[in-house]
Amino acid sequence: MGNLSLFLIISILVSIFAFAFAVWLYRWVSAQPSSNQRVKEVGSYIRQGANTFLKKEYIVLSKFCAGAALLIFLFLPAPIWSGGTVLHNLTIVLAYLCGTVFSAVAGKIGIQVATIANIKTAEAAQRGGLKPSFLSAFRGGAVMGMAVVGSSLLGVTLVMMISGDSVALLGFSFGASSLALFAKAGGGIFTKTADISADLVGKVELGIPEDDPRNPAVIADNVGDNVGDVAGMGADLFDSNVASTVSALVMAIALGKKIGVDYAAMVFCYASLGLLSSIIGVMAARMGKKGDPTMALNMSTYITTGIFAVLTAGATIVFQFDWRIWGATAIGLFVGVIIGITSDYFTNDNKKPVRNVAKASESGPAFTILSGVSYGFLSVLPAMVGIGISAMISYNLCASIAPEDPTAGMFGISMAAVGMLSIVGMIISNDAYGPIADNARGLVEMGDLGDEALEITDSLDSAGNTVKAVTKGFAIAAAGLTIISLLGAFMSEVNDAAGTTVLTGFDIINPTVFFGMLVGASVPAIFSAMLMLGVDRNAQRMVSEIHRQFREIKGLKEGKPGVVPEYDKCIDIATNGALKELIPAGLVSILVTIVVGFVGGVESVGGYLAGNIISGLLLALFMSNSGGLWDNAKKYIEAGGNGGKGSEAHKAAVVGDTVGDPFKDTAGPSINTQITVVSLVASLMSSLFLAFSLF
Amino acid sequence: MGNLSLFLIISILVSIFAFAFAVWLYRWVSAQPSSNQRVKEVGSYIRQGANTFLKKEYIVLSKFCAGAALLIFLFLPAPIWSGGTVLHNLTIVLAYLCGTVFSAVAGKIGIQVATIANIKTAEAAQRGGLKPSFLSAFRGGAVMGMAVVGSSLLGVTLVMMISGDSVALLGFSFGASSLALFAKAGGGIFTKTADISADLVGKVELGIPEDDPRNPAVIADNVGDNVGDVAGMGADLFDSNVASTVSALVMAIALGKKIGVDYAAMVFCYASLGLLSSIIGVMAARMGKKGDPTMALNMSTYITTGIFAVLTAGATIVFQFDWRIWGATAIGLFVGVIIGITSDYFTNDNKKPVRNVAKASESGPAFTILSGVSYGFLSVLPAMVGIGISAMISYNLCASIAPEDPTAGMFGISMAAVGMLSIVGMIISNDAYGPIADNARGLVEMGDLGDEALEITDSLDSAGNTVKAVTKGFAIAAAGLTIISLLGAFMSEVNDAAGTTVLTGFDIINPTVFFGMLVGASVPAIFSAMLMLGVDRNAQRMVSEIHRQFREIKGLKEGKPGVVPEYDKCIDIATNGALKELIPAGLVSILVTIVVGFVGGVESVGGYLAGNIISGLLLALFMSNSGGLWDNAKKYIEAGGNGGKGSEAHKAAVVGDTVGDPFKDTAGPSINTQITVVSLVASLMSSLFLAFSLF
Repeated sequence: MGNLSLFLIISILVSIFAFAFAVWLYRWVSAQPSSNQRVKEVGSYIRQGANTFLKKEYIVLSKFCAGAALLIFLFLPAPIWSGGTVLHNLTIVLAYLCGTVFSAVAGKIGIQVATIANIKTAEAAQRGGLKPSFLSAFRGGAVMGMAVVGSSLLGVTLVMMISGDSVALLGFSFGASSLALFAKAGGGIFTKTADISADLVGKVELGIPEDDPRNPAVIADNVGDNVGDVAGMGADLFDSNVASTVSALVMAIALGKKIGVDYAAMVFCYASLGLLSSIIGVMAARMGKKGDPTMALNMSTYITTGIFAVLTAGATIVFQFDWRIWGATAIGLFVGVIIGITSDYFTNDNKKPVRNVAKASESGPAFTILSGVSYGFLSVLPAMVGIGISAMISYNLCASIAPEDPTAGMFGISMAAVGMLSIVGMIISNDAYGPIADNARGLVEMGDLGDEALEITDSLDSAGNTVKAVTKGFAIAAAGLTIISLLGAFMSEVNDAAGTTVLTGFDIINPTVFFGMLVGASVPAIFSAMLMLGVDRNAQRMVSEIHRQFREIKGLKEGKPGVVPEYDKCIDIATNGALKELIPAGLVSILVTIVVGFVGGVESVGGYLAGNIISGLLLALFMSNSGGLWDNAKKYIEAGGNGGKGSEAHKAAVVGDTVGDPFKDTAGPSINTQITVVSLVASLMSSLFLAFSLF
Repeated sequence: MGNLSLFLIISILVSIFAFAFAVWLYRWVSAQPSSNQRVKEVGSYIRQGANTFLKKEYIVLSKFCAGAALLIFLFLPAPIWSGGTVLHNLTIVLAYLCGTVFSAVAGKIGIQVATIANIKTAEAAQRGGLKPSFLSAFRGGAVMGMAVVGSSLLGVTLVMMISGDSVALLGFSFGASSLALFAKAGGGIFTKTADISADLVGKVELGIPEDDPRNPAVIADNVGDNVGDVAGMGADLFDSNVASTVSALVMAIALGKKIGVDYAAMVFCYASLGLLSSIIGVMAARMGKKGDPTMALNMSTYITTGIFAVLTAGATIVFQFDWRIWGATAIGLFVGVIIGITSDYFTNDNKKPVRNVAKASESGPAFTILSGVSYGFLSVLPAMVGIGISAMISYNLCASIAPEDPTAGMFGISMAAVGMLSIVGMIISNDAYGPIADNARGLVEMGDLGDEALEITDSLDSAGNTVKAVTKGFAIAAAGLTIISLLGAFMSEVNDAAGTTVLTGFDIINPTVFFGMLVGASVPAIFSAMLMLGVDRNAQRMVSEIHRQFREIKGLKEGKPGVVPEYDKCIDIATNGALKELIPAGLVSILVTIVVGFVGGVESVGGYLAGNIISGLLLALFMSNSGGLWDNAKKYIEAGGNGGKGSEAHKAAVVGDTVGDPFKDTAGPSINTQITVVSLVASLMSSLFLAFSLF
């Protein structure tokens, strides 16, 4: 099984193929007709706003990254003055910087295509109806999907080819995830600031429709969809995908050293097949005869899953790979689908939870919140049990490869994560579809493209929301598995650094470990709180600005022709607020990790990571699902349930949705990245913790 | 240090002294003047309602306990047919039943005195002013405090004298905590159903004052204070106190077997001194010159703390106890105070969090919720770090007693919990003071005792709320420490049952352990969700009933003389709802534990308990603190801040308070008990899990 070089070359070819496919999709989307001047104009505002924000955000982040690169150069994997490691430190710096650049480029590509596809989708809704409109949005999203997965596979392959070193791989992954952490936080704060403020003043106070051009925050809201849900989410999934591949490779390399068999080839083979399956899945995405966009999206996800399972089984036969590892991968994929289905149960408006929350809203907003929180709490169980079971099975399947060592089992867990994320290209396509459809809806409203087009984009938008719940389940669960296996990576890094087996595990009964667990469990809570307080503060500023405009700009409220609000002011508030708030939460998480490491030592860090994973999964699932649930409960009422638009139940549901917005789009999905970053920091700094800790 | 018998006798004498003191306090309260017919009448409604509910609740619980007793007899500690253990099983059944009965009696005593003290406090507010009114409420609460701590010390001492057996002690503790689990859940659902419904219809919809006699739910609300906050909370703290003492004893017995030194004497000595300190603290409670009830309550807490530290130091000199163990106890006490102070920061209306939430309420209820959730999340960090540090220090202090064995260190952690709970008599007195003052306020309003009396009882009530946050911090932290040490107890039970060392710890890297952790972490979330959905459903029923009465009873809304609402109907709804909802949540937690044990085996259970503790502490702290914060933000606005009563900010704050009510009084404080019950189930069933597990 030493045919690593073969699979490295195949991986590069497959990623290039994915890029070519992305270019083809991009051209297809660009070639769609568009002519409406008003739509073009608004579309260009959105594109400008998104690009301006992205540029400013990347300037802030480049400063942070430069600082981090300097620290890495000085200290990682060992202090530069400890002799003979300058070149190694430099390799890691380069890998780290590559990670950040690849991630940033993927975000930029996403924005580029999304801000074209939104226009095309809007016009297609008017001209051609549901099917072409769906396809414009979906293929626009797929450009992002292909770009992200292609560049993550390419990046990991290149780092592997050039260095072949675990620490450099972790450095690349750390680059990707540190950028993702801040991009997701910044984008998440931007988008929810604008979304909440626009809704509160527009829908609740003044009773004007969503995306009404009179609303000063309406462009900011549409910009937010792009910078938060497209660029931020892209960075996030780029990071998850890199992390799962890297953690599998790190375990494969460690295993290779121990038993002399190189499983890295298999990792690259499966990763390439995952990308191929996604390409096929994207091509296969078609609207069925009934014209149900939700079903079209879900079908293409399931098709991708099936193709991946078949292709990897085929490859396992042809290249005589180990079937136990295939089993671990398949388990991951299977459990991912199960988790997606259960998330769907808690957020789908045909199911009991959404219906009950809508019903509870009749008694007022407090009941909306209480029932939503309760169902959100209930929703964590299936996913947590699923993650636990897939970790247990995949570990036990692979443990027999090297029975005396936990590395083989941990490798199994990381392959389950690879399996779960194998279809990530498809997931990103579906996810990026959402904000494009949402934007298109805005453009239809603002460009006055008619009721029929509005109805079409409404149904596209709602499908995006439903599918999001399913894909989010995948992403969170995969992050959980990845980080469980990174715990193994952390342990092998420590033992490598010590040159002897100082750690054989992390014993809960050891109070140093337990101390770490308690602190680690608090971090996702603190992190979410800081992000939400950021949104809270920022939205309060924007709400006053909107109030000011309606008060001071004469004729705006009445919709006098020719009177336009000052959209820029709102975009500025969202931008500046997001830039101010995006660093602290992530930085605190990293600093606490470092403090725990230097106080409690490597055993505390092990406990810390475990506590962090557990509470991170718990809170991420809770926040994503309850947020999705409130959103759909509101939509259910708006569609006429429990009193319909304007009723007391509707007002209560809007409160729920507003609370849910930062839950599901700012804090919840950022937790993924937070736990990944923290794991990578721990692994990278392991030798320092080993050398200089208080306890 | 073998003078165990001496300290057993001293413990019995001290508990009898506490009972005598309770009787004296009870007589003092009863002897206070009361003459107002209207107050007497309403007071008797409340007493009747509370007693009726308690009776019905105890009937349901006695069936559950009978079933549990039968199962214990058949299976615990080993199946009865496995030969020769009938007597042992019977001992445990008896210990279990004693635990339930002692706990039930303590609850009953609390209701008895609270429903007298409320009348006395109300009338004292009219006749004598702040000082005598405060003293009536406080001494009424202290009866409960003395009864609970006296009976827990007496119970543990008797079980120890008669059986001297770890499993019987755990059985007694299990009896106490299984009763507490359901009593707290039942009482919590009752009280919040009534409270929320009364507020929503009364304050929000109709704008009538709190405790207005026209409100059909007003008596149910006052009954709720008694069955939830007095009886439920009493059972809860009875359970925590028993659990901490029992876990210290179990570890002391295990340690005694290993190194031949009996530390049980020391546990009883410290427990007796804790009770004595509380008695002195209660006697010392006096209103200062400035007449600030909050300061009076906090001062008596700190006095008790100081006395306990001095007395135990003295005893350590006189009886030549080990100073390391004193150190562990002192650390626990010290960290408890620190945690109390930080909880106070997040819930006190003079501090930034409450002020910011009140400010955020000006922008609407969504911001009240978002900022409250955020501060609630932030508030977990100091307590989690504090618990972690006290566990680490107390373990390391005592580990040197028997360096080769974790038992000594675990004993240290359990003594830190004993230290934290040493002043539990004082805590319960303060806690039971709250609902008495709250009830008195209701009686003043309903009996029309005048504005001055209303003002006095208002200030007493508000002091109760503030102090509650501090004492809750103690209770949650102590439960955390207790259960960390019960993890040690679980391990020694498993090794005892196996007759050899099958467990030396629980390794996080082991996926069976990790699986347990993930499932364990979900349980407090599920448990809270089920309780909150119970309140939600029940409150919706009661709200419709209140609406019906205002619609159908002519003249009620206008307050026509002679027209009274049908109070009974509301009490019935609260009672029936609570009885229906109180069993499932607790039962699910127990069943999941058993399933994990039989599927994953003892190692999974270890992980399960750790996950349960971590997420339990996280959620309990989050819910208690955010609930307290919302309550005080509402009070701050009602006192004139941010627009005052009737403003938009006030309406938003009422939504926050309504969400916070089941957070802080139903789900949050029940999690304590849930994690204790689950730990005890695990320890008691350890030999069964060892014999019959799937993995």
